[in-house]
Amino acid sequence: MLKTTRCAGASWLPGVLLVCQIGTPAHAAPAAVAPETVATQLRDAALAGHDIAYGWLSELTTRFGARPAGSPNEQAAAEWAVLRLKALGFENVHLESFPITAWVRGTESAQLIAPTRQPLVAAALGESPPTPAGGIEADVVLFPTLAELQAVAPGSLAGRIACVTLRMVRTEDGAGYGPAVAARIEGPAAAARAGASAFLLRSAGTGTARFAHTGTTAYVEGRVPVPAFALSNPDADQLERIAALGQSPRVQLSSTASTVSGAHSQNVVADIRGSAKSPLEQFVLLGAHLDSWDQGTGAVDDGAGTAIIVAAAKLIRDLPHKPQRTVRVVLFGSEEIAQPVAPGSVFGGHAYADTHRGELPRHALAAESDLGADRIYAFALPHAVLKGEFADTVLRVLGPLGILAESHAPRDAGADVAPSVEAGVPAFALNQDATRYFDLHHTADDTLDKVDRVQLDQNVAAWAALVWLAADGTQNFREPGAP
Amino acid sequence: MLKTTRCAGASWLPGVLLVCQIGTPAHAAPAAVAPETVATQLRDAALAGHDIAYGWLSELTTRFGARPAGSPNEQAAAEWAVLRLKALGFENVHLESFPITAWVRGTESAQLIAPTRQPLVAAALGESPPTPAGGIEADVVLFPTLAELQAVAPGSLAGRIACVTLRMVRTEDGAGYGPAVAARIEGPAAAARAGASAFLLRSAGTGTARFAHTGTTAYVEGRVPVPAFALSNPDADQLERIAALGQSPRVQLSSTASTVSGAHSQNVVADIRGSAKSPLEQFVLLGAHLDSWDQGTGAVDDGAGTAIIVAAAKLIRDLPHKPQRTVRVVLFGSEEIAQPVAPGSVFGGHAYADTHRGELPRHALAAESDLGADRIYAFALPHAVLKGEFADTVLRVLGPLGILAESHAPRDAGADVAPSVEAGVPAFALNQDATRYFDLHHTADDTLDKVDRVQLDQNVAAWAALVWLAADGTQNFREPGAP
Repeated sequence: MLKTTRCAGASWLPGVLLVCQIGTPAHAAPAAVAPETVATQLRDAALAGHDIAYGWLSELTTRFGARPAGSPNEQAAAEWAVLRLKALGFENVHLESFPITAWVRGTESAQLIAPTRQPLVAAALGESPPTPAGGIEADVVLFPTLAELQAVAPGSLAGRIACVTLRMVRTEDGAGYGPAVAARIEGPAAAARAGASAFLLRSAGTGTARFAHTGTTAYVEGRVPVPAFALSNPDADQLERIAALGQSPRVQLSSTASTVSGAHSQNVVADIRGSAKSPLEQFVLLGAHLDSWDQGTGAVDDGAGTAIIVAAAKLIRDLPHKPQRTVRVVLFGSEEIAQPVAPGSVFGGHAYADTHRGELPRHALAAESDLGADRIYAFALPHAVLKGEFADTVLRVLGPLGILAESHAPRDAGADVAPSVEAGVPAFALNQDATRYFDLHHTADDTLDKVDRVQLDQNVAAWAALVWLAADGTQNFREPGAP
Repeated sequence: MLKTTRCAGASWLPGVLLVCQIGTPAHAAPAAVAPETVATQLRDAALAGHDIAYGWLSELTTRFGARPAGSPNEQAAAEWAVLRLKALGFENVHLESFPITAWVRGTESAQLIAPTRQPLVAAALGESPPTPAGGIEADVVLFPTLAELQAVAPGSLAGRIACVTLRMVRTEDGAGYGPAVAARIEGPAAAARAGASAFLLRSAGTGTARFAHTGTTAYVEGRVPVPAFALSNPDADQLERIAALGQSPRVQLSSTASTVSGAHSQNVVADIRGSAKSPLEQFVLLGAHLDSWDQGTGAVDDGAGTAIIVAAAKLIRDLPHKPQRTVRVVLFGSEEIAQPVAPGSVFGGHAYADTHRGELPRHALAAESDLGADRIYAFALPHAVLKGEFADTVLRVLGPLGILAESHAPRDAGADVAPSVEAGVPAFALNQDATRYFDLHHTADDTLDKVDRVQLDQNVAAWAALVWLAADGTQNFREPGAP
């Protein structure tokens, strides 16, 4: 039998008990320990409090602040991450660069011109073109929904600004984002079709604080067709109340946004090598993204995700024995300009899947942390293991963290790992409480102080434990008969 | 005996019972009713839900948004208030204009230049001079307190920017504001004395949302001596963390702030006339201010105060009988640039006291609502009536609203009524819960959505009831022997 005691090699984890054989030197190969036992101890080690996740997140957001895709800050953060991951003991740490067209906000302003002059809080949507040099001044026509804007006659809004005021619904699982973001994605095209000179959106965000939520939008013939801005929720309320008073809001918008062709972004790849060697080496892929929107410091989106997966992998790294599979951490670049893919555009998730195409059949499992730093309340496993001993074990280990088992496979693997998942890699998910995430998402208010360290550590605990169970074994997560 | 029933003249108050004699026409003089009975009914009418306060506040903040002292919006709001007060049945409604030097923010920006470029959320302090045209770029020296900045050798910060990072303490009574605002008021002078080229301040505000809190600061020889900016709390945290990493933050600041001499502001005066006629007419003065800072819409500071006192007076106006004393509502102009009075400056509270100097001896009592829209938790009466039947009656009427009696006279009468109080007018106070007020105070986030209608109505209830008790009687609130 083994006894738990403090391992010499784990001195970076104050007060944490790890499994090692009494009398054997740290890092010597101990006798096999049941994966569930190790997973439970990893879980408890993460909860015991350590500085890996929060320390990483604090340093990342402090040193580099905003890390827009293709920016010097994104690159500097990636180079810093390489050094830090090496120092933490990761192997095979390297950058994988890829070309992108970057977008730069420039200066911008928005104000109500009539019935009275009032400053408005607005932010250009990602990849929005600039306004003409003198700005755009026009009456605003309000539409409660995207569908109502899409239904107007082509050209009927000439000389005016179209504004969709749909309000995002707050839910624990973030389900309100889908309907809200549809107006962000499709709105500029609908406004352009109607002949409007610009598009305004009530932010796809749940907060009542006066922040505008940026984010990408869809291209029409290779570009966002009209200047497009998000208004903060209070500003959208204001336009609606002005209209309810029988007055017509007139707005002036200006933006010097620009694009930088020939820019590049990069993924950071780092492994905790498993015991099985090539060509038998398999991977459990953990993803998060290092880029962020440009007004905040990318703390909850997605510095937290990078901190969670790095800390979870580091806990595994510092065990006295290796898992069978390699745990691969990828800090993706250029996630934020990914979603409404422009023709020919390349971003981190695609770049990884392309570069590692030959390895993907040996990716046993993949998942992404990209919904903030609040607690995990459920796990979702691939369909092939929804029931059975693996799922039962996961529930026994994660249940004490307040985590339920979902009855279905992940509905959304995450933007970064999606190209790998589409290529056949099975996905799991650790579903986070997103109740307050969309108060901060894509705003200037996405800063370190919003992160709850207790909940951050609960994330690390769940990731470390589940990843260990997936990595230290030979469980096949693919559907029977899948390649 | 009287019976309570619905009064014909009170149809604007749905579901509210007011006192009138059965069979007498509304507005006919009924037999005398005990002031406590009427005060109780006013209290309950306010709680029953009506639209006067919230409707006023919504319309004020929607139509005019920010109302900086001396601005067209402040004047338009005052002119609108005159019309609305007349429509509500107030008498003697008029503007009293006075000259001021206005301050206009212009455009401004702040960014970290080193160790990496990061946008900062900052706002010029009120009356700050502009930066030179190219902005100011300099290393920042952090001081935990104002005293530590004041202690450095004169000239020792030449070529640098001084920053005080003292954090405001959150308390129910707002007591944290005093120590925090001292750094705002005195900081620019201390920075100038030390030779610094600019002054930065951790905002005098409690919130962690990324808003900078503006506000006035002290003059040295007739002007604010160096460009001065407030940083949001997360941005001040960021500078402190950068310094803790051993790096030196370097910041670029720019501002085109300007002053407008020959501007004017105005007080709005409106009366609910009492039954005693001149020269026996006495006044109960209710104050709040109509101006606001320039980035929000002045909802909690101090649109709410104007709404509360207008609604309370309107409830009294619609009673079937008059109080003995006149209830005077004054919506002051130019409160926000009042506090660090520049030599020769004039603002609303002084303008009122000067214009009405001859009436002040007949001001029985005065108070101001200027701490947001959250609930009142205590009342404070003038020293002369701290004990006795008047205080006992107030407690019986206000106690059911969750309001305690303070054991001392008001410590701060409010900036607008202070000049009248200094001239001998006794003051009372209805102390509001300021726990969240300083999250919003002087920020862009001071918008209508932050107002809790239930708490707003509790304010109206307390004001209407207490003002009635003060107005419908002959209680002397002055100290025995006072003029």
